Formats: sequence, structure tokens, C-alpha cells
Amino acid sequence: MTEQSTSSGSAPHRADGDAWGPDREMFLRDFHHTTRFGATEAGGIDRQAGTAEHGQVRDWFEDRAEELGFTVTTDEIGNIFAVSRWVEGAPSVVVGSHLDSQPLGGRFDGTYGVVAALHAAAALDAAVAAGTLMPQVNVAVVDWFNEEGARFPPSIMGSSVYAGLLDADQTRQTRDPQGVTVEEALQSIGRRGDGPGPQAAAYAEIHIEQGRRLERAEVPIGIVERSWHTQKLLVSVVGEQSHTGATLMADRRDALVAASRAVIAVEDVVRHFEPESIVTSVGKFDVEPNSPIVVPRQVDLVVDLRADRRQDVERARELLLKEFADIAARSRVEISAEDFDVRPVQTFPEAGLDLAAKACRDVGVESLRLTTLAGHDSIPMNRIVPAVMLFVPSADGVSHCEREFTSDADLVTGLEVLTALVTRLVTGELDGVAPGGRLQEAEEA
Amino acid sequence: MTEQSTSSGSAPHRADGDAWGPDREMFLRDFHHTTRFGATEAGGIDRQAGTAEHGQVRDWFEDRAEELGFTVTTDEIGNIFAVSRWVEGAPSVVVGSHLDSQPLGGRFDGTYGVVAALHAAAALDAAVAAGTLMPQVNVAVVDWFNEEGARFPPSIMGSSVYAGLLDADQTRQTRDPQGVTVEEALQSIGRRGDGPGPQAAAYAEIHIEQGRRLERAEVPIGIVERSWHTQKLLVSVVGEQSHTGATLMADRRDALVAASRAVIAVEDVVRHFEPESIVTSVGKFDVEPNSPIVVPRQVDLVVDLRADRRQDVERARELLLKEFADIAARSRVEISAEDFDVRPVQTFPEAGLDLAAKACRDVGVESLRLTTLAGHDSIPMNRIVPAVMLFVPSADGVSHCEREFTSDADLVTGLEVLTALVTRLVTGELDGVAPGGRLQEAEEA
Repeated sequence: MTEQSTSSGSAPHRADGDAWGPDREMFLRDFHHTTRFGATEAGGIDRQAGTAEHGQVRDWFEDRAEELGFTVTTDEIGNIFAVSRWVEGAPSVVVGSHLDSQPLGGRFDGTYGVVAALHAAAALDAAVAAGTLMPQVNVAVVDWFNEEGARFPPSIMGSSVYAGLLDADQTRQTRDPQGVTVEEALQSIGRRGDGPGPQAAAYAEIHIEQGRRLERAEVPIGIVERSWHTQKLLVSVVGEQSHTGATLMADRRDALVAASRAVIAVEDVVRHFEPESIVTSVGKFDVEPNSPIVVPRQVDLVVDLRADRRQDVERARELLLKEFADIAARSRVEISAEDFDVRPVQTFPEAGLDLAAKACRDVGVESLRLTTLAGHDSIPMNRIVPAVMLFVPSADGVSHCEREFTSDADLVTGLEVLTALVTRLVTGELDGVAPGGRLQEAEEA
Repeated sequence: MTEQSTSSGSAPHRADGDAWGPDREMFLRDFHHTTRFGATEAGGIDRQAGTAEHGQVRDWFEDRAEELGFTVTTDEIGNIFAVSRWVEGAPSVVVGSHLDSQPLGGRFDGTYGVVAALHAAAALDAAVAAGTLMPQVNVAVVDWFNEEGARFPPSIMGSSVYAGLLDADQTRQTRDPQGVTVEEALQSIGRRGDGPGPQAAAYAEIHIEQGRRLERAEVPIGIVERSWHTQKLLVSVVGEQSHTGATLMADRRDALVAASRAVIAVEDVVRHFEPESIVTSVGKFDVEPNSPIVVPRQVDLVVDLRADRRQDVERARELLLKEFADIAARSRVEISAEDFDVRPVQTFPEAGLDLAAKACRDVGVESLRLTTLAGHDSIPMNRIVPAVMLFVPSADGVSHCEREFTSDADLVTGLEVLTALVTRLVTGELDGVAPGGRLQEAEEA
């Protein structure tokens, strides 16, 4: 696999084998440089959206993009665009990902896609300058704001605002747990821009897989054909606060005991489904008042349900709501659950999948069609323009943690495929293709 | 019960039926006035140690004590003492409780004991001025710092430092979850004093019962004969952080699922013991990184074990450690547990129990001997001087919550008994009595 990654293919608009292409060494130097912003001791990064560390890596991105000849703008929700100066007034093929991370997150998730997009665009820019590439549109390298959603919910915020799925004004009023708004956080890092950003003609994104399928198959590139159906449940467990020392067990209405039973119910519900067809989790779990000698009065938790098929998520949801009602009755607490962040299965356009396969052949590497369990900025973008999403392998499939890893060779292969893909996109190969969209009900059955 | 509370008895040093005694109306006015500091919408208070609201009620206490003729000092850990000017150079009978609260706590817990002590002392001061009471020592009304321990562990902090069980310098370096030290919090409310405070000759405290035994028995005063054996376990559950969307169930090492099983084990362990002989709880529970789309890597939780008998706490601890090991193996996480805040059964001196019963007879009310499941400032004080602890009834037995309630009539009865008790203490009726202490091993069997 790694041998193939250094082979060169025949991109359709490439003049010859060595005339132009991404600068692999410069790309690797830049990518590894970004890992210094918010670096953690165990080799990860901690760059939650709107923090000082996040602001620093974004300033670096702006400086680097300007050095490479792009015009940098920031939109009303803090997305940063580095746009080429090729075709005055034309829309852009938007290419990128995000520079924010989870707390103690990995250094590849998101950041790889932004730095790869920048170097793909730089390679094209050199070709345009040399007269070997004749683009019909511009390229815009994007760093979306707050893909991770760890500090400000929901995740995939910046691209959802850009795509018109979230309102910009309302979204800027979202608060983090300390009460800081998105508006304030953006101002604190100098990224409260104006206006909607450049107009998009198409979208491309490369990302680490965050799964083991490429690694198992020993294939360097995944082409994403659809996303999983996902939703969250905002669950609130309300009991009664009392003294741990002075309240007899029979007199208690302990919200934490009931919430713990709910967490176990969320894990256990997967036994009703086929292995690997569904994942269920509780990641956020807040106890009130959270004092060592007080029986908790309330727990707020977020359940995350994801499956390849919509009806599996819906059935898991039904089973859990019934189980929560049983727990509430048994523990003498109240449990409420609210649907949140429901994201139906989205399919990427077939023409985009074919184009991505051609780009792999340009570079001379194998590819595999995959689904994505995780959400990505490509999903809202796919609602407004044809979008293409590529994956590179993740060691052991792990992500959102400090030991997330992808080899330099795999990173470079991905960069080369992305460059070939964007080359095809800026010359209009997806012109007239409709955006992707929600799978029809009939197809889901 | 409430009729009796307004009857007057014959305190031994009281000149006659109407010559002196606590001013019930002024006491009630002052007590209810304190509920305005940190008042919550649902009728409780929120005055965690060292917060602005806590500082305000303490400033009120200082002003009120000075108006009533006492000299106010603050010691090295922020305990406030209001000392009488009766006998130059003599030690003091210390009487009081604490003005801090749990988050969304009740308005009676602690505050009642401080305001009652102030008015008992004021009544004695009037009698001394009138020449009808001849004290051998002074009285010092105390507001102990941080009895609740909700913000800074451990609870019962100020009285433990005063009693020499905790080191003052080290304790002032304790941090809250935001990293603020006790030192900084004390300075922020102007309560970083110097020195050890006045010397104690004896200690008395009145507090709400936080249980239902007085209510069930319809008796207005409880006399505490001993505390329960208590301990905490600091438990850390360490798994691996990963992506909720992209990590298959079989690949997870979810710290929250394992910690939830631990919470349920803590509740279930009581089935091995007689009903009402043990209470077990988890009140503090912190999830890391606590993001909706991240499988948690770590949960830190505090287990609270309390029983009338030491060996029951120790057996519960053994059963839980074994259960935690099973959970760790099954969930592929690591679970460590550290003993913390172990407080053996403490007995109050028999002579003090008898004196409290006499004080009840002085006032003409019934009393009942009880144990305390909860910790109180009287417990460390009982290690250095003879201490006497009184309870008044709690409606429904609830506490550490906003609906904590004791009637005005019961509050006044308690005030009158406390006044009679302190009258006996300042005239030397416990002279020569040894402090209380740990129950001997042989007696515990």
C-alpha cells in the first residue's frame, strides 16, 4: 500500500509526469507544524473551537495561505476561506475540513483535510500560473468553524450555517458551559467576519477514516457513498437533592443511580441489532449539584444513536424511551427525552463517486466505497452542491483521542488523490450534477 | 410538641421566670433575615464556602454580634468568633455551627445553629450585666468555615483545623474545581485571619436533625450520643477516549459505562445489611472529556459509606472493591479506589448527655437520645473539649435541599434549651470532664 502512494498517475490536465503536483515535503512540514498548536503531552492536540490555541492555528493558516498566493476572508460564523485569484467573479470549488479538535483529541482529525486542501490548491495554482491548467472556476480552501461541537453544540456548526441549515445570528448566541457565546469566542480570536463567504460550485474533503475498514482491506483511499442515520436524545433525569449522610436509602430519589441505569440501557440496546450495524453512546453527563455529600437531584445526559439504517435508529430510540420510563418508575424520578440533531442518511452524488475513483486511477492507487458513521462538514455541503468525500486509513481505527495515527505515506497518497480530484472539479467535471441528498424512504426499507 | 415549646422552665442560674432569657422575636427576625443571603427561588439558599453570598452573611453576622456587645475575630482558616467580655483572659465555651451551605441547599442547616448560639449568648450577656449570672469563663459564638465541603474538600474543614486535626497552611492550599485556593477565597471575602482563635473550655451546637426520628417520636429535642462510622472512597475509572460515531461497540473501553455500573453496585451493596443500618451514595461524579460525541476516557467519583457500626462500613468497602475489580475486567477499564476522610464512631461524653437532659428539663420539654449519620463541627470539637450536640426536628427528615423545613416553634424550643445548656456550661458544670472520643474496638463488636 505504501509503495503505491509514491507512484504518480496521469491526471487529465497534468502536462507531464513531473511538471506539477503537490509539494509532498512542504505539505508534510506544514502538517506536522500544525500539531504544535495546542499540543498535548501524549502526542495529541487540544484546540476546542474559539480557544486561544484554536485561534493560533487559524492565524497560522491565514498567513500560510497568503504566502501561497490566496486571498483570505472570514465569514459571519468564523469560517475561513483562502480563495484563488484565477477567474474574477466566478464561484469556487470549496475544499477543506476543520482545525478545531475535541478536548485531548487527535492531530489528524480535520487538520489533515485543511492542510492537504491548501497544498492541493497550491499545486493547482502553480499549474494555472504555468498555463498547464485552465480552470473554469476558483478554488477556495476552507477551515470550517467548530466541526467538533465539544464546546458549543451542535457539531458541524460552521458548514451548516454556510449551507443555510442553521441561522447565523441565532448560532452566534450559542453558549458554552461557562456561558461564553460563539459571538464572544469568535471575537476573542479575531474571527467574527461578515457576509456569507464565497459562492460554492462543488465541495471536496479528505479526512481520516476513524474506522478500521481501509486498514483491514489494505486499501489507501476510501470513497464515501453515504452517511449513517444519526440522532441525539437530550435526556434529563430529575430526582430530589438530599444529604448522603442523613437520608435513609428508602427515602431517596437519587438522580445519579437512575441516570447510571440509563447509561447501561443505552449500551445494552445494541443487543437487539446485528453486530456493527449500530453504535450507541453517552458522551456528555452532568451531575447536579455534584457534591460528595449530596444525593444528586439532576443528571443531564446526551445519548448518541447511529446506524446504517434509519429504522434501526428509530427502533433503538423506541426501546430506550420505554426503558427510561421503567427506570423512572422504579427509581421514583422523572426522565424526559428530547430529540436533537437528527441527521438522516445522506447519499453523495453517484457522479462524484465515479470522479473520485477516476482521481484514484490518475494517481494509480486502489480505492474502496465506504459509509461514514461519523458526521463531517461534507454532509451539509452535499445539500447545496455536489460533494465528494475521501478517507485515508486510521491506525487501529481510533480517533477523538491522542493516539490517533495515520502514516506520512498514507497522508501523501491522500494529498495526491485530492489534488487529482480537485483538478477534475475546477475544470467542470461535475457541472450539471445535482447535490446529494436524503435517501428516499422507499430506498431505506 | 409545639405547645411545649413556648413553656418556660427553671434554668438553675435564672433569677426568676421573666428576668431574662433569649429574645424569641428578635431571634426569629434575625434567623429569617439570614435566608435572604444567597436566597434561591425555591426557598433555599446557595452559599458555598468563600463565595460572595457566603461573605455577605458572614459580614451580617459580624455586625450583628458587635451590636450585641461581642468582640469579633477571624482565625487563620476563616472561622469567625464573637467573644463575650466577661472574664478577662479566661477560655470560652464555644457555641455555634456554620453559615455556608450546599449548592441549592436548605436555609436551616448550620445557619440555625449560629443564629441560635448568638441569641443564647446575648441572653446570657444580659444576665451577666444584670448580675443574675456569674460565669467562670467567656462564651464565644462561632461560625465555622466550610462545614459543607461542597466547593473545597473535605467537609468540616474550619473546625477540624481549629481542633488540630488538619494543618492550617496545607488546608488553605486546597483548590476548588476552578483552581481557586481556600487562601484566595478567604481573601476575597475578607476572612483570612491570623492565629488560632480563642481557647475553648467546652463546646455546644444545635442543628436540625436531617432525619425523621424526632418527627416520628414527636419529641422536640434530640441529644446526640454518638456519630456513625463514615468513610469515602475516591474512585477513578480509566478507559480510552474515542469517537462515539466511528468506534464500533466491540472496540470501546467506555469509562462512563463502567462508572455507571460502579454507581449501581454502590446502591446495591446495602442489600447485604439490615435496613436503615447503613447508607451508601455517590454524590460527586466527573466525566472526561464530557463531550456529546466522545466516548468518555475517565470518570472520577466519590463513594460515601456510613453505618452505625464500623465493621459494616468495612464490609461494604470490601464487597465494593471486589465488585469494582469485576467491573474493570468486564469493561476493559482500570478502576482504582483510595480511602479518604475515614471518620470512626465518636461518642459524646456521658456527662454532657446528662447535662443536655437537664437543660431540657429546665425548659420543660422532652428529649430523645440519638445517633448522627451526618458529620458535624461538634465531632472534631469533641476530640479536644467535652462537646454537647442537640437536634431539633426536620420536616420529612429532608436536608441539603431547598425544601428543608423546621417550624418557628421548634426553632424557639431549641433556642431555649441551648440557652439553658450554655448557662450550665459557663458556670462550669462540665469542669473536669474529659473530651469524647473514639469508641473502643471492644465496644464496637
